[in-house]
Amino acid sequence: MNVESFFVNQRSRYLEELKEFLRIPSISALTDHKEDMNTAAEWLAESLKTAGLKNVQILPTKGHSVVYGEWLENPSKPTVLIYGHYDVQPVDPLNLWQTPPFEPDIRDNKIYARGATDDKGQVFMYIKVIEALLSTNSLPINVKFCIEGEEEIGSPNLEEFVEQHKELLSADVLALSDTTLLEKGKPAICYGLRGLCGLQIDLTGPNSDLHSGLYGGAVQNPIHALVELLSTMHDSQGKVTIDGFYDQVQPLLDEERQAFNELGQSEEQLKEQLGVPELFGENGYSALERTWARPTLEVNGIWGGFSGEGTKTIIPAEAHAKITCRLVPDQEPEAILELIEKHVTKHTPPGVWVGVTRFDKGRPFVSPINHPTIQAAAKAYKKAYGVEPAFTRMGGSIPIVESFGRLLSIPVAMMGFGLSDENFHAPNEHFHLENFDKGLLTISYFFEEMSNL
Amino acid sequence: MNVESFFVNQRSRYLEELKEFLRIPSISALTDHKEDMNTAAEWLAESLKTAGLKNVQILPTKGHSVVYGEWLENPSKPTVLIYGHYDVQPVDPLNLWQTPPFEPDIRDNKIYARGATDDKGQVFMYIKVIEALLSTNSLPINVKFCIEGEEEIGSPNLEEFVEQHKELLSADVLALSDTTLLEKGKPAICYGLRGLCGLQIDLTGPNSDLHSGLYGGAVQNPIHALVELLSTMHDSQGKVTIDGFYDQVQPLLDEERQAFNELGQSEEQLKEQLGVPELFGENGYSALERTWARPTLEVNGIWGGFSGEGTKTIIPAEAHAKITCRLVPDQEPEAILELIEKHVTKHTPPGVWVGVTRFDKGRPFVSPINHPTIQAAAKAYKKAYGVEPAFTRMGGSIPIVESFGRLLSIPVAMMGFGLSDENFHAPNEHFHLENFDKGLLTISYFFEEMSNL
Repeated sequence: MNVESFFVNQRSRYLEELKEFLRIPSISALTDHKEDMNTAAEWLAESLKTAGLKNVQILPTKGHSVVYGEWLENPSKPTVLIYGHYDVQPVDPLNLWQTPPFEPDIRDNKIYARGATDDKGQVFMYIKVIEALLSTNSLPINVKFCIEGEEEIGSPNLEEFVEQHKELLSADVLALSDTTLLEKGKPAICYGLRGLCGLQIDLTGPNSDLHSGLYGGAVQNPIHALVELLSTMHDSQGKVTIDGFYDQVQPLLDEERQAFNELGQSEEQLKEQLGVPELFGENGYSALERTWARPTLEVNGIWGGFSGEGTKTIIPAEAHAKITCRLVPDQEPEAILELIEKHVTKHTPPGVWVGVTRFDKGRPFVSPINHPTIQAAAKAYKKAYGVEPAFTRMGGSIPIVESFGRLLSIPVAMMGFGLSDENFHAPNEHFHLENFDKGLLTISYFFEEMSNL
Repeated sequence: MNVESFFVNQRSRYLEELKEFLRIPSISALTDHKEDMNTAAEWLAESLKTAGLKNVQILPTKGHSVVYGEWLENPSKPTVLIYGHYDVQPVDPLNLWQTPPFEPDIRDNKIYARGATDDKGQVFMYIKVIEALLSTNSLPINVKFCIEGEEEIGSPNLEEFVEQHKELLSADVLALSDTTLLEKGKPAICYGLRGLCGLQIDLTGPNSDLHSGLYGGAVQNPIHALVELLSTMHDSQGKVTIDGFYDQVQPLLDEERQAFNELGQSEEQLKEQLGVPELFGENGYSALERTWARPTLEVNGIWGGFSGEGTKTIIPAEAHAKITCRLVPDQEPEAILELIEKHVTKHTPPGVWVGVTRFDKGRPFVSPINHPTIQAAAKAYKKAYGVEPAFTRMGGSIPIVESFGRLLSIPVAMMGFGLSDENFHAPNEHFHLENFDKGLLTISYFFEEMSNL
C-alpha cells in the first residue's frame, strides 16, 4: 500500500489522536498550567515512541522541557531535524470562542481548538508521517525531533539548550512548520526573517519642568533636542541615515526581486487595508521588498512633557524615545547598536544630557534559496499541491530560527501549512484539514526528496 | 504733618486692618468660598468708603464681583486707575504652613498669610495712601479703583467687564502692584509682558498600531512624520523657522538692551540653578533678552506609541504634540497661529493625516518706557528707595494687562512691591513690611509726580 492510501485509511484515527493532544491545555505563560505542560510533554513522548522513534527523552531546561526523539538507521542518508512546540497561547477572551478552546471540534473540514494550527496540528503531522513510513518500512532518511514548550513565551531557554546539545541535534536541515501558506492552495517556503535590536534614548534638560514664560528662550527644550536628534535618523524618503547602517546589508538578488514581484501584492489594497493616505518608504523598493528584505529603524514610542487637556506652558525636564531596528543579513545587532549610539552622541543638540539603554537583540536570518534541501522542500510542495511554492521572507523576527541555523550550521526549511486567517493567538483558532491532508503528503515527499540528495 | 510722619503714626492701625482683610478666606477657585468672596468684596467697599472714595460700588460679573470706587475732584489733573484683586490662591498643602494661612502673623517684620503679598497687601497700600492724603486734604490727582475677584482663576470675565465699562474706567494710566522688586532694596518697573498662543498637532497613520516586523518599511511612522515636521520649526540655534514668525517683532531698543545688561544677570548662576549643561537660544541675544523680549515656540508635550518598560515593536497609529508660543509686540496671536498652521500644512511629510486644534490666546504688551507716567513711577521709586528702579520685562503673560492697555488706550505702570521669595501661591506666603512702608511712600510720591504732568 502506498503512503497516500495509508493516510486515507488512517485519517479518522489520526484526527482522534490530534484531538487528544489538543485537549491538553498546555499554556506555557500561565503557572497554573505547569502540570498540563508536563502532561503534554509526556503525551508527545508517548506518541513519538508509538511512531517508532528511538531514544525518546523529555529533556529539562530552566523552564518547560524539550521532547526529543530520533530514528537514525539510514546512516548513508541525510538527517532532518524537526522543530516544533507543544505549548499554546492563552485563550482569553473565552466568550468569543464558538466551541471551548480545549474541546476540539471539526466543522466545515476545519478543526477548531487552541493549538490546532499553532503548532500542535502542524508538529503532529510529522509524527504521523514517520509512523506511517516506519510501519511500512519506507522511511528513507534519518530524523530527529526537538519539540519545545516555551515558544509562546519567547523561547527563553532554547538557545542555551541547542548550544548544550549540538551533537545530539546535529542534522543536515531543520524543518519547521509554524508559518503559513501564501494563500489557500498556494504553498510558501519562508527562507528569511529580519533580526531585531532596540534602544531607548533619554534626554534631560533642567532639573524640573520650567515655566515657559519665565525661562522660554533661555534653555534648550529637551523635546526640541529629541526631535532634532531623531530627525537626523531618516531622510525624507524614510531611508535610514545612520552612518554605516546599510554597510553589511546583502542586496536583494534579481531572482528574489522577480519572485517577490510575481507574488502580485497589491499596494493599493494594502493601503486601503491599513487606512493610510499612501504607502511610504525607501525609494527604489516595493512595499514587499521593504518589509521582507530591507532594514528599518522605527521609533516605537516618544514621550515628554504635558499630554493632558488644553495647554500647560512648560519646558519639560525630560524627553524620551524608544527605537527598534529590523535587521537583514548580514547586519549584526551589536554593531548596529554601536552605530546608533555613535550617531546619538554626534547629533544630540547642545543644552541637554543624553542617556542610552540597550534592549532586545536577535540576528537576521536567511537560508540560501538554492540550497538542495530547500529545493527538496519546494519539489515536495509542488508534488502535493500541484503548484510551485512561493519563496517568501518575513519582516518579523523568530530568533530561534537564526539560533538553530547558526549553532548547528544548517539551512532551515520553513514549511508552513497554516492559513493566515486561522486565528493564530486569537479566539476560534483552527486548522484547515485540506492542509492537514496535503501536509502529510508534502512531508513524506520531502523525506523522499531528501533521500535523493 | 507730612505724609511720611502720618504713615508712621498710623502704622499699627493699618496693620490691624490689613490683618482683618487677610482673615477672609477669599479663595476664588473653590465654590465653598463663594460667601467669603462676597465678604471680601464688602470689606473692600467699606474700606474704600472709609478712605473717602466716592461712588463705591460692587459691580457684578458672570463670576465674582468687581469693587469700584473713585475720587475725581481735581478735574484739571490726571486720573490714575488702580487695578488689584481681592481673591487668593488655595492653601494646600496646609500642613506646610508654620501659622495658619488665614490667621495673619507678623514675624521678623514680615506679615504671613495667604494673600499677604498676592495681592491683598499690595492693593491695601493704595487705599491707605488715599485715606492719608484725603484726610490731610492733599490728594493731588484723581483716582479710580477696579479690584477684581477672579485673578487667580485667569480673570475670565474681566476683559468683558472693561469693555462694558470703558467710560467708567477711563484714566491716564493704570497702576498695578501685583509683581515684585528686582531684589531686596532694588525696585523694578515691569513695562512688558509676552503674549501667548497655542495649538495641538495630531498626526494619524494606519488605523491601528501595526506590527513593526510585518509592516515596518511599508508605511510612514506617525512619530517619524511628527519629528520631521517639528524639526522644521527651529534652526540649530533655537531660532524659530516658521515663515513670517518674526515679521511683526519690534526690535529691542539699544537703551533697553543696555538697561537689561546693567541688571547684571549671571548666566553661569542661572545655568547652575536650572541644572542644565549650558544655556541655549537664539544667537545674538542674552538669556534675559531672549526670555523677556524675544518670542519663542515651545513644544510643551509630545506623545505617541509605547512608553512602558522594555520594547514593543509597533508602528503607532498616532503621534501628537502640544505647542505654545510666547509672543512679543507686535505679534498677533491669531496671525501667528495662521502662520504655524500654514507651516504644518506645508511641512507635514507624506503618509499621514494631519489635524490641528487651536488653544489659548493673549496679546503681548509693552508700555512705552519713556512715557511720562512711567517716568513718574520711576521718580517715585527713586525717592522712596534711594536707588533708580530697574526697567524690566517679563517672559510670562498677564492677559488682563494687555486688555486694560488696549481697551482704555492707556500706559500701564506695573509697580511691584513683593519679593520673589515671598511664596506667591505657596505655603507661608508673606509680605516684607519694609516694602509695605516704602510702598506707601512710593505710591504717594507717584501721585505727587503725576500731579506735575
